[in-house]
Amino acid sequence: MMLELSLDPAAAVPLYQQIYQQIRGRILQGELPPGSRLPASRTLARQYGLGRITVTTAYDQLLAEGYVASQTGAGTFVRDDLPLPVNAAAPPFVPILSTYAQQITHPTPTTPSENEMRVAIDFGFGRAFPHLFPYDTWRRLLNRYLSTDDSILSRYGSPAGFAPLRQAIASYLARQRGVRCTADQIIIVNGGQQALDIITRLCLNPGEELLVETPGYPDAWEVFRMNGAKLHPLPVDEHGFPAQQIPRNCPARLAFVTPTNQFPQGGAMPLERRLALLQWAQHNQAFIIEDDYDGELRYHGHPLAALQGLDLTGQVIYLGTFSKVLFPALRLAYVVLPSTLSVPFLQMKAVVDRGAPTLTQAAVADFITEGHFERHLHHLRQAYSRRRAVLLQALADHIPLPLRYVQEAAGLHVMVYLPPGIDEQKLVQAAAAHGVGIYPGSTYHLLQPSPPSILLGFSGLDEAEINEGIRRLALAFTNL
Amino acid sequence: MMLELSLDPAAAVPLYQQIYQQIRGRILQGELPPGSRLPASRTLARQYGLGRITVTTAYDQLLAEGYVASQTGAGTFVRDDLPLPVNAAAPPFVPILSTYAQQITHPTPTTPSENEMRVAIDFGFGRAFPHLFPYDTWRRLLNRYLSTDDSILSRYGSPAGFAPLRQAIASYLARQRGVRCTADQIIIVNGGQQALDIITRLCLNPGEELLVETPGYPDAWEVFRMNGAKLHPLPVDEHGFPAQQIPRNCPARLAFVTPTNQFPQGGAMPLERRLALLQWAQHNQAFIIEDDYDGELRYHGHPLAALQGLDLTGQVIYLGTFSKVLFPALRLAYVVLPSTLSVPFLQMKAVVDRGAPTLTQAAVADFITEGHFERHLHHLRQAYSRRRAVLLQALADHIPLPLRYVQEAAGLHVMVYLPPGIDEQKLVQAAAAHGVGIYPGSTYHLLQPSPPSILLGFSGLDEAEINEGIRRLALAFTNL
Repeated sequence: MMLELSLDPAAAVPLYQQIYQQIRGRILQGELPPGSRLPASRTLARQYGLGRITVTTAYDQLLAEGYVASQTGAGTFVRDDLPLPVNAAAPPFVPILSTYAQQITHPTPTTPSENEMRVAIDFGFGRAFPHLFPYDTWRRLLNRYLSTDDSILSRYGSPAGFAPLRQAIASYLARQRGVRCTADQIIIVNGGQQALDIITRLCLNPGEELLVETPGYPDAWEVFRMNGAKLHPLPVDEHGFPAQQIPRNCPARLAFVTPTNQFPQGGAMPLERRLALLQWAQHNQAFIIEDDYDGELRYHGHPLAALQGLDLTGQVIYLGTFSKVLFPALRLAYVVLPSTLSVPFLQMKAVVDRGAPTLTQAAVADFITEGHFERHLHHLRQAYSRRRAVLLQALADHIPLPLRYVQEAAGLHVMVYLPPGIDEQKLVQAAAAHGVGIYPGSTYHLLQPSPPSILLGFSGLDEAEINEGIRRLALAFTNL
Repeated sequence: MMLELSLDPAAAVPLYQQIYQQIRGRILQGELPPGSRLPASRTLARQYGLGRITVTTAYDQLLAEGYVASQTGAGTFVRDDLPLPVNAAAPPFVPILSTYAQQITHPTPTTPSENEMRVAIDFGFGRAFPHLFPYDTWRRLLNRYLSTDDSILSRYGSPAGFAPLRQAIASYLARQRGVRCTADQIIIVNGGQQALDIITRLCLNPGEELLVETPGYPDAWEVFRMNGAKLHPLPVDEHGFPAQQIPRNCPARLAFVTPTNQFPQGGAMPLERRLALLQWAQHNQAFIIEDDYDGELRYHGHPLAALQGLDLTGQVIYLGTFSKVLFPALRLAYVVLPSTLSVPFLQMKAVVDRGAPTLTQAAVADFITEGHFERHLHHLRQAYSRRRAVLLQALADHIPLPLRYVQEAAGLHVMVYLPPGIDEQKLVQAAAAHGVGIYPGSTYHLLQPSPPSILLGFSGLDEAEINEGIRRLALAFTNL
């Protein structure tokens, strides 16, 4: 028999494999029926001007994988004892997903770069300014562990995290954030989202209530919703989460708050609200998740101590991250757990993910213990404080409208409330037309309609870009 | 009033913070009652021989955080409008965990190093031999991206993974594993466990059945169980998963198999079983998870093509990992999804974890596209093939008992079945007493009692260690 093949000597896939794949395809689809004889390797080689070894290699692979059998002297035959042909005409399988999967309301994520390409000056949130990070130091720390002599990389690490890093974080948190914990209570996670996912799965049954702030953090809401939580939003004011207003009969057993710097509006929870929240948790047998995503980034006075330090009964779960203060692509965060929760958390963490990459953890541990981290934080505070001041000055200079925002100097962005009547979506579009990326505040509100507002991140831009961006934003206002 | 403090000038925590913390603690616990007056800063400074600025810094922090109020001329007072004292006598909170959490049966993980310290020669599974990995090349690739000019690290990456890495994997898989996919179908995950967790959550409702191999992979079982799956085990033989024996009425809609090299027993699924499995999936509207955890590591002939390449209807989910072929601490794996599943998978991945670290992904992408990966695989095959041969020869030389194992030369370990009547746990203990780490086979069996067996990983040991380890193991046999 003749065999028509379509071979491309220039392709990345070697010729023997092209032959193997095409013959295999025909056998599977029934075009080479069971029992049919393949051309002699010599014949096929001559037909396509190939070396015979190319053809025999392909035949050997077909033989090894059980598509053909060879009979000495008689040649190579398609096996006749296979359950063939595969039903090639079968329609593509359309799966029925789990009830769980149907709870994901998150839109398909786009890569951040797709957004960035659209605009010249992007007030996107959560970016680190590339030139601030001490890459030389970082490279030196990484290289320390990248030697053949070191066996640190050739084993699975502990799912709880690299022990020296946990120790370094515990002592940093005690020193800088007023967190009271031992290294045992700290577990390293691949970003804060993972910690929220594990906590929700551990602490909440589907259908149960969870207290959240609004405006708040939509990525956290997604994790909670996906795990079946019913979100109970309380509107924040300039002092953050109004713990004293939690309804008496609220059955929530989990609350998610940002006490140090309310996300995204800004503002710190005063002591009386913190105490009221802890008392609520005691009364309701609830856990509080304290997301201290940028607690280090306050630009006046000492950073406020964490809520966790006030907790005497083990009801506060503290979340910290290196995304904001080192760089986002690092994907390293940590959670400080009450001792009653650390074992179940670690068990689940070990099941879903065997732990964070050791190399990065080792380098971060050295970065902290050798003082680079606190030095870097000092630089960040100076740089971001200036950028924030420049942004606010530019808003005052260029935009002659009454804009409202929380005054506390902290964080990487400012949430600006616009005068009533301004359409924030139209403003976002008009700004984009001027090459400026700003972000609609409605995304961050659980209660709709929300007052018109925009988010302006300043951490990825230099001072000239901030000024120019706001100048263009002013033009966008006039185009509404 | 006098205030008794316990201050330690040598502590890591600065003195002002010690003062702040101790006063704060007493206010919270009611020992400094509402309205009480703090000593004048001058007095306290004199009492403890401190600079006055140390005390005023502490007082300022207490003031900023709302513990005290100051009345000009009258001094500093504990606020009397706080909901205090916190109930310091309240017992530690004992949480009631979710039903979900109660499904975790995984024991608290111990760090691998704890095991390793016990034994001199450890036949542990899944280790990479440190000296085989080209650290110099790896360091060079990483450093390429560790420059201040590169903004790759200062943004969040795509949750699906770094695009050039997905492309590199797609073309590698086509070339080497017979996987048919585009880069769009590939999503980078933080280890295979994460992929299993997401797949189970997407595809299975609690209480539904899932087909697994026994002996098999306990870490996968844990993920499945935690997500409420009912495991339906089928015993494998030397040809892997007996797809033709799946009961007609089995309602499973998910199967987890290791067709290339059955874990942990060894053996490859022949074509007829692969076709039978695909036909079962079509008939039952099921997904098959193909765990190709070490498909590259076959030591005779070409690696067998993946099951995924036979799938015409989009029912095979392919899992690959870099843990075995680069190094475990890398924590990087990938999943090739049927197109019907790639969007929901990506949505969930984006919610639970914003993606893998960009730096590592960029370096692995270059490692593949520049040919280092396939060169490294070639070295690994040579090295591991030799170690496997040394192990089997040592077993034959030193242990005069009928031992059974699957002959196919592949993988990083050998599962050795012992003669009936030998107590594997006692053997493990006796081996440990001789400084040798071997691992009980019963861990890997879902159906108990299981035939006595042990797992011997050879990838972390050199040839002399393997010989010496088996010599000592022979002594352990005589001590039973």
